[in-house]
Amino acid sequence: MRSSVATETTRTLRQALLSPRSVVIVGQSNDAGKTAGRPLKYLRQAGYAGTIYPINPRRETVLGERAWPSVAALPEVPDHAYIVTPTEGAVAAVAECGAAGVPVATILANGFAEAGEAGRAREAELRDICARTGIRLIGPSSLGVVNLRDKVLLTANAAFAEADLPVGRIFAASHSGTMIGALMSRGKARGIGFAGLVSVGNEVDLTVGEICAATLDDPDIDGYVLFLETLRGAHALQAFALAAAARHKPIIAYKLGRSSEARELAVSHTGALAGEDDVATAFLADCGIARVDTFDGLIEGLPLVARVPAARERPRKPTVGVVTTTGGGATMVVDRLAASGIAVEAPSAATLARFAAAGIDVAPARLVDLTTAGTRYDVMKPALDILLTAPEFDLILSVVGSSARFHPELAVQPIVDSRAAAKPLAAFLVPDAPQALTQLAHAGVPAFRTPEACADAIAAALRRRAPRPMVARARPSPSPWPGLSRPSTSSSGDLKKDVDGRHEAGHDRMLDELEAGVLMDRLGIARAPALAFDAALTHAPDLPFPYPVAVKALSAAIAHKTDFGGVALGVADGTALVEAARRIRTSVAERAGTRLDRVLVQPMISGIGEALIGYRVDPDVGPLVMVAAGGVMTEIYADRSLRLAPVDLPVAHEMIGEVKGLRVLAGYRGKPAGDLDALAHAIVALSRLAHDHAVAEAEINPLIVKHDGVVAVDALVRWI
Amino acid sequence: MRSSVATETTRTLRQALLSPRSVVIVGQSNDAGKTAGRPLKYLRQAGYAGTIYPINPRRETVLGERAWPSVAALPEVPDHAYIVTPTEGAVAAVAECGAAGVPVATILANGFAEAGEAGRAREAELRDICARTGIRLIGPSSLGVVNLRDKVLLTANAAFAEADLPVGRIFAASHSGTMIGALMSRGKARGIGFAGLVSVGNEVDLTVGEICAATLDDPDIDGYVLFLETLRGAHALQAFALAAAARHKPIIAYKLGRSSEARELAVSHTGALAGEDDVATAFLADCGIARVDTFDGLIEGLPLVARVPAARERPRKPTVGVVTTTGGGATMVVDRLAASGIAVEAPSAATLARFAAAGIDVAPARLVDLTTAGTRYDVMKPALDILLTAPEFDLILSVVGSSARFHPELAVQPIVDSRAAAKPLAAFLVPDAPQALTQLAHAGVPAFRTPEACADAIAAALRRRAPRPMVARARPSPSPWPGLSRPSTSSSGDLKKDVDGRHEAGHDRMLDELEAGVLMDRLGIARAPALAFDAALTHAPDLPFPYPVAVKALSAAIAHKTDFGGVALGVADGTALVEAARRIRTSVAERAGTRLDRVLVQPMISGIGEALIGYRVDPDVGPLVMVAAGGVMTEIYADRSLRLAPVDLPVAHEMIGEVKGLRVLAGYRGKPAGDLDALAHAIVALSRLAHDHAVAEAEINPLIVKHDGVVAVDALVRWI
Repeated sequence: MRSSVATETTRTLRQALLSPRSVVIVGQSNDAGKTAGRPLKYLRQAGYAGTIYPINPRRETVLGERAWPSVAALPEVPDHAYIVTPTEGAVAAVAECGAAGVPVATILANGFAEAGEAGRAREAELRDICARTGIRLIGPSSLGVVNLRDKVLLTANAAFAEADLPVGRIFAASHSGTMIGALMSRGKARGIGFAGLVSVGNEVDLTVGEICAATLDDPDIDGYVLFLETLRGAHALQAFALAAAARHKPIIAYKLGRSSEARELAVSHTGALAGEDDVATAFLADCGIARVDTFDGLIEGLPLVARVPAARERPRKPTVGVVTTTGGGATMVVDRLAASGIAVEAPSAATLARFAAAGIDVAPARLVDLTTAGTRYDVMKPALDILLTAPEFDLILSVVGSSARFHPELAVQPIVDSRAAAKPLAAFLVPDAPQALTQLAHAGVPAFRTPEACADAIAAALRRRAPRPMVARARPSPSPWPGLSRPSTSSSGDLKKDVDGRHEAGHDRMLDELEAGVLMDRLGIARAPALAFDAALTHAPDLPFPYPVAVKALSAAIAHKTDFGGVALGVADGTALVEAARRIRTSVAERAGTRLDRVLVQPMISGIGEALIGYRVDPDVGPLVMVAAGGVMTEIYADRSLRLAPVDLPVAHEMIGEVKGLRVLAGYRGKPAGDLDALAHAIVALSRLAHDHAVAEAEINPLIVKHDGVVAVDALVRWI
Repeated sequence: MRSSVATETTRTLRQALLSPRSVVIVGQSNDAGKTAGRPLKYLRQAGYAGTIYPINPRRETVLGERAWPSVAALPEVPDHAYIVTPTEGAVAAVAECGAAGVPVATILANGFAEAGEAGRAREAELRDICARTGIRLIGPSSLGVVNLRDKVLLTANAAFAEADLPVGRIFAASHSGTMIGALMSRGKARGIGFAGLVSVGNEVDLTVGEICAATLDDPDIDGYVLFLETLRGAHALQAFALAAAARHKPIIAYKLGRSSEARELAVSHTGALAGEDDVATAFLADCGIARVDTFDGLIEGLPLVARVPAARERPRKPTVGVVTTTGGGATMVVDRLAASGIAVEAPSAATLARFAAAGIDVAPARLVDLTTAGTRYDVMKPALDILLTAPEFDLILSVVGSSARFHPELAVQPIVDSRAAAKPLAAFLVPDAPQALTQLAHAGVPAFRTPEACADAIAAALRRRAPRPMVARARPSPSPWPGLSRPSTSSSGDLKKDVDGRHEAGHDRMLDELEAGVLMDRLGIARAPALAFDAALTHAPDLPFPYPVAVKALSAAIAHKTDFGGVALGVADGTALVEAARRIRTSVAERAGTRLDRVLVQPMISGIGEALIGYRVDPDVGPLVMVAAGGVMTEIYADRSLRLAPVDLPVAHEMIGEVKGLRVLAGYRGKPAGDLDALAHAIVALSRLAHDHAVAEAEINPLIVKHDGVVAVDALVRWI
């Protein structure tokens, strides 16, 4: 029965959130020019049919209507409150609404999470009111909620002083309040309409994912446009994305924070820490959300994303066919597509034969350039017919030159007439051609105004995949690895088991390398034999492997051994080993200020090259797995591949393919190739930590990639 | 007297090219819907005041006017011929015009350089006619020449069926014919007008640089917009850019070919090979041309480029101040600027104090966010006044949110009223706000419609510098390096001087490593001592440096020694040296199929790290100097910095700063720093090859960067 209750709750939330029968505006101003004056003005202007209760205790009337003194004084409990009072009064207003039983309140004021200690205290009060009264909140810092179909203009965004609001079938949600106005007005200029738009603000209660999820069963919403500044509510966003995919409702997102500067601004702007950008990319991709990089791409791209099926597996590199009446204009898009890793290819021999049979003069090149054949309906239409049925292409782009401005009948009309084709079709018009753009928009053909937005949306649509299922993570258990209490099978009797508890800081605990090795064994990742000895050893021990060997400080207290002189490589014999251990002990004492009890001795392992694989639980998006080449290259070139963990083998191989620095392992320039399959298996194994274990962070660096197999040489593990 | 003759020639060319008193249209069609029917129609429609002679030997009249049978039959010699006949007739038409003394002809037909052997033969014929008759040509593949002031619409571009043509003070030239229509129509939609637009086509005679140069003294032209597909006429383009800079006329360019796919298309499209993209970037930068990466940036960017002075030296990283009424909207631009290496910084303490004194509530953050202070004229205007006089900023960007749509008086009018400020000011409007954009355009404030074009144009404007003077290159001399005939001072008596002439292929000649060393000496680049020995040596030679040593194959025939097993490093003693030489001899014989006579012996040189520096004469842009980290990083990450050669020390240091892989030499993560000053001196020294020598290519790889100084360990030199 829980699911029907949940459905009922969702329906009630959606109704109160987006289709309230009555609204209260707490703090409505009598000055329509002020921000707090707009909601009543816009609601009346749009012709909202429900009841509006403006509250202003200092006045009898506002904007010519009766003003109420308080929520308690109202004759009924309204569905939705928009609280537009200044920060100081907002918390009290929410409390009043909660006490009165108002189901949803939206808060305009800022001065919460982004405003230091006092702001965070206010936010805590809001959460407390939610818990106590059951009221659900949008905001703070929300410019409001708009439902264009029901004329609910519960917003203070100045762009909604609009005469003809563009009603459509897209739902938009944004962390930035400005964007609901910008999306609406820019959409209108493009013939793109919206069902609703919500400024989600700081998400102290309802997050962008929860708000969108509440609208999922609305049959008049076909897809979602998101403007994101943080991934604060990542879990709910992922749940929404999966549910949307199940209903075949596509999602397109623009996410601020490509740069660290922008991520820093997100803190001051929304009070939320924004994680690294490639984490957002990996997260959105695994959610099946198409991420665009241009603002116009966000506005113009959804119709295209909706047309391109999101496959679970990527069968091959997606391929675009381009037909054009202008070589230069089309090349602008090709240039950008290539930078995004999308191939524009020449038609196959079979397709070229069809062009020849149709009497269309086409050279065997990357563009089907109709310049010579002529810019005419009876050239462009059959050319499109041929390309849209050519099996080698995943998507067809038609680029139209100067004729689009005054003669859309020549090369634009054929695109309109091809709108029902089974294959996705997009258009870019090179001149300013508003009439032709409107024609395409009305026909439902994705059309673009800039080559950048065009390439961006095509790449986002073709890269998009079906979302990966969510993983339920195991709870931390008191003894997550029973095997950890006994010494590793490969360790010698010299082992002193006294590390426990020494590095305990907060909830975390670093494991030493031997303990980390036990974890590798459990995951099935091969590792180098390792023997622990007293760091003060005075004579050469017996070793089950030959010299030269590596000697390393063994201590959970020293995560980065090399920085403290804690590693000696290529140690040639027993005498050198004793001396190396002495030097390491001295160096660690001097540079890390720590007494070193033990050293670890391993054989020197060589291979074709090395990799770094890592696992961590991101505070926003949860378990992640990473692969990189390791060393300074990884840092300097920011060259790594990330996915939500766990991953399977095909995804692990994809990840390896994304790291440029790992190309040297794939038989680069005739050099021998490393065992990339074993590397992929190790990635998969490490990523399984997401299922079973209470590990906060694990890193194998280096993982030696040999001609046959991989060997972990060092590992760093942090327990939750 | 030559300069006044040249000026006279330029004036005549400009007049015939752009302001002809009479034009002839060879091949004018009677069907105005056809491409060849458009020129007469557009000229009449625009009200061209000169004489028009349509030529069509098959008709008495065309479009209701008298048709002439041939150029020879005309009553006068027209200033300019537009030849719109098909390919087959075009060459004959040019010949006829040339014979009649027509000074300039523009050719519409394609089928020349881009059309294989037959096309190249036609092109050669055109060149021959030019040389014989003195006629100057635009095209082939030219959609024509437009002078909007004089209503010269000598074009077949369909976008010029325009009622109100946007006359202005910008001159545009494009390799792509479509773009003259796209620039005009998109400019018109933005309130941006043009003096003239030329589709330069395949540049068989007049290049984009020469055509623009002809207009330089036109007092009604303020700046230039270029759409480039190749750098075919790089020398003339550079000469034009220098002359434009001297007249303070800015140039902005969009250059196709970021990707290899687009560069491949340039061949099929224009018949020109396009070089690597970073060569184009380096060339345009050294010409003082602002290169943009977005199409809207090209159209909207020139007014901003015109406002930002192009300094000769870059005093510090350029800094942008941002004032906004929307945090999210402004962050979209900041994100892009950061990716372009442009810093957006918070106001200084002094500036913040001025905000406080003015009663404007501004947090000390990277954005001056007026959300709290309020979107009002009396907030935005003083905020702009403060920022536009704050010494810490090079440029101020004002981002306006929803109010821009219906209330430009609040936050847009203050920008208009700040247009006369000494500091450059740009605006980005987040909603669709056509009225406000028009207001800004009329006020001459650079305004942008997308965050991408805005950031792109700001970065291009701030990166632009005064052009570097052109270098007159010395001609190849028969014996460019007299020193080469005698053995290097550090070489032993074992030297066999028999390399000469062996690797002579075409005009080039590879030098062997010892010969290359002589060049290093002459350039003043320190190199490792090197001794040459018979490769079949049987006993250890006396060495003036200690073991271990490096042993390398010495032969001009083997450029990449390592690929043929031609290098042994860390050779420990005399016996090992003899053995290493034997192995190298055998290996080179087996793998390169070459008898190796000599080996080179050097001490092992170690340092903090290494670099690769190179010099080459690019077929388009001429002498270039390059620095990279060397090794696979350079190739895999395409991580190198290029400049036109020669360079001075500050530029060499800039180049080093641009190579990510060289950060490890600058004291990365607390490691010791290499002598970057010595590296810069070596770059400068190598770049001087542009002055003196007939070197086609020189590469020092590796150049060992030590704590103190640099040492060339291997060099490769190719003579012209």
